[in-house]
Amino acid sequence: MTTPDRPPRQSTRPEEPEQASPAQEEPSLFEKCHRFFDPSGDYAKLKQADLYPYFRPIEESEGSRAVMNGDELVMAGSNNYLGLTADPRVKEAAQEATATYGTGCTGSRFLNGTLDLHLELEEKLADFMGKEEAVLFSTGYMTNEGVLEAVAGRGDIIFSDKDNHACINAGAQKSLAETKRYRHNDFDHLRKMLKRAHEERPDAGKLIATDGVFSMSGKIARVPDLLDLADEFDAALMLDDAHAIGVIGDGGRGSASTFGRKDDVHLITGTFSKSFASIGGFCVGDHDVVEYIRHEASTHVFSASMPPSTVATVLKSLEILQDEPERLDRLHEISDYMRDGFRNLGFDVWESETPIIPVVIGDMELCFRFWRELIDEGVFVNAVVPPAVPKGQALMRTSYMATHTDEELDQILDAFHKVGKKLGVIGTNGHEVPAGA
Amino acid sequence: MTTPDRPPRQSTRPEEPEQASPAQEEPSLFEKCHRFFDPSGDYAKLKQADLYPYFRPIEESEGSRAVMNGDELVMAGSNNYLGLTADPRVKEAAQEATATYGTGCTGSRFLNGTLDLHLELEEKLADFMGKEEAVLFSTGYMTNEGVLEAVAGRGDIIFSDKDNHACINAGAQKSLAETKRYRHNDFDHLRKMLKRAHEERPDAGKLIATDGVFSMSGKIARVPDLLDLADEFDAALMLDDAHAIGVIGDGGRGSASTFGRKDDVHLITGTFSKSFASIGGFCVGDHDVVEYIRHEASTHVFSASMPPSTVATVLKSLEILQDEPERLDRLHEISDYMRDGFRNLGFDVWESETPIIPVVIGDMELCFRFWRELIDEGVFVNAVVPPAVPKGQALMRTSYMATHTDEELDQILDAFHKVGKKLGVIGTNGHEVPAGA
Repeated sequence: MTTPDRPPRQSTRPEEPEQASPAQEEPSLFEKCHRFFDPSGDYAKLKQADLYPYFRPIEESEGSRAVMNGDELVMAGSNNYLGLTADPRVKEAAQEATATYGTGCTGSRFLNGTLDLHLELEEKLADFMGKEEAVLFSTGYMTNEGVLEAVAGRGDIIFSDKDNHACINAGAQKSLAETKRYRHNDFDHLRKMLKRAHEERPDAGKLIATDGVFSMSGKIARVPDLLDLADEFDAALMLDDAHAIGVIGDGGRGSASTFGRKDDVHLITGTFSKSFASIGGFCVGDHDVVEYIRHEASTHVFSASMPPSTVATVLKSLEILQDEPERLDRLHEISDYMRDGFRNLGFDVWESETPIIPVVIGDMELCFRFWRELIDEGVFVNAVVPPAVPKGQALMRTSYMATHTDEELDQILDAFHKVGKKLGVIGTNGHEVPAGA
Repeated sequence: MTTPDRPPRQSTRPEEPEQASPAQEEPSLFEKCHRFFDPSGDYAKLKQADLYPYFRPIEESEGSRAVMNGDELVMAGSNNYLGLTADPRVKEAAQEATATYGTGCTGSRFLNGTLDLHLELEEKLADFMGKEEAVLFSTGYMTNEGVLEAVAGRGDIIFSDKDNHACINAGAQKSLAETKRYRHNDFDHLRKMLKRAHEERPDAGKLIATDGVFSMSGKIARVPDLLDLADEFDAALMLDDAHAIGVIGDGGRGSASTFGRKDDVHLITGTFSKSFASIGGFCVGDHDVVEYIRHEASTHVFSASMPPSTVATVLKSLEILQDEPERLDRLHEISDYMRDGFRNLGFDVWESETPIIPVVIGDMELCFRFWRELIDEGVFVNAVVPPAVPKGQALMRTSYMATHTDEELDQILDAFHKVGKKLGVIGTNGHEVPAGA
């Protein structure tokens, strides 16, 4: 043995008992935190009236059903579009990966956290999306944040839809690029911004970033129009297809695919916490661009990699998505049925075209009361209030999964009908809005 | 049934075949990506010489050993401090949670992604750390990013150590607060900054943010000095104990605990991708502050919650940490042994005082060659080069786990001895540095 004899061992720092220290004054930094709980504020009032709809714990979940506070509810407030979180094959794949690889990788992809399993998933996602390369991130949030901070640097300009998801805003903020936000889906506004930027700073790199499906309205971004603008003004297009891949388009290939233009989009991102029954995200694109992101995105390089069970969950979900196209057919059938059902009852569902169906209620307090009454009727949905939606347009965000039964769907419509009449959101006979409007 | 008759069903958007579109010019945004792969650049040269040490896939992992490229290696480059990723009890807990709750929550904690399991873990972490409340995040990266963006707002000032982890920088950047970075561990510099800020803007909320253990040097932040400064200048102190909780301090309670001052620190964050064998993170502190973070941190509200298997992994790891204190004893014994071993061989290990032991090699190319030679000797460590470390101080970052055997430790020292002599990093007889220096 070439190593020296062992030295006497001693702890570098002996433990000291926790000592009572003089009471310190609370730093003024935290004043804002206490104000949040002021008895006259929204939080205290909602809690008091048992109308506070957030952070409610689920005790059991079987996909389309969940147990909360002892009551079994129909779940119409998840993003479990394919219903795969409870699929026995998916569960088994997750369990087997834990047995084989352990519970975590305890390191970043960059250093010691890359398994052959990660590479397999990247290859299969790139193949599925018909792109050269894919890179994984450990959350969907970090995916968009990382892609934007990497590809848009100092001197570049990001053009971002005002209704984009918070993580796109986060990436734009972290990036050293200038960010311009255009009015939601307003391509005249976007064109003016691009034209001006192109004239003033022709050499600046330009990136248009948009949700592929908007998460509150369920509306699909008009990809062909965006591609035309990108082409005209030397801009790249990045689509966040969190609510689109595994949901819409040819075989579930997302928003651009619904227009036959997937191959033309430069960067497409997706998430694993929706159709893919897990957590994490990915970005696909050309080789050099994706490899650059892999090296330059802080959220990729400095974060632990996806645990083996989550990678295996996504691999199995991707396989099922491809092997069982009837799941997507059922999902679209359900979405059409529910949209029409709500409209026939007299509800406003905006311009939803996906399994996300917003049901407009009105002001915030009414919205919270509606949410509470739906729980009593055995239906869980999500209450969305300003600033996430315009003032006076607080809504029930409903979303559907391929595994919802016809009976469950009708239970949801019945509950909305009953509560809608009770609270005066729809007339007592429904049908205020002409069918099909 | 109160719902209207089903309307005729039709897809909202018929699939269109992918159409060939006119070849578009590549946006100039991506020029930077291609430059990264320039044949004259570092990346191409390292790849060419088979010296590129990053993103290497692991085929099998059993805690202290891993198989890469068909070769079994001793793993001294992970953050698996307690060696629990391969523990049968931890694996079983993960698998059972998958069976009970499914593979994912498909929603944020805020909306539909809170399980009773999440609440149980938050309660147990708060108890363990002796604080009022805990909040979980889905990655450690998002923990610090979220805590900072939430508690430090417009008009506040963040004082951040220059060697802090990337995710603290990310949070400071996302926060609307002003950020001032003080020289690493230089409390005279910090004092000057605080004093000036206190004089010029006495009403501004102030937050000192620092790693509890610095991830490259393995050095512990001097918490009592930081608390004195915080107290004097009305600042709060936030410690990122990613490499400290489950590693050092009383029962693994982190950096402040080694000084007996845990109770005085306002906010302590930790991660689950190290001692806790999973992925995710948490923050503990006073009730109002943590609840405020829960509502205001974008990375918490807009990201999917931790999957059931990862929560169960952490719960079981926390239980084992508390039931088997001998794991921490072994970890400290190992760290002392390795620090002394490297020093006796003539290596510079900086001022490491934890299971992170940097071994300084010198310039970047030598560092990569050293890394490659260690692989041939059956040892995996991480090569860390500027800008992560000062120029000329490129190093092998080694780190240890409670489950390393004496034989594995000696294999690591033997390999460093052999490669160190071969590449001239240490003299042929070792012992350049007096033992115990």
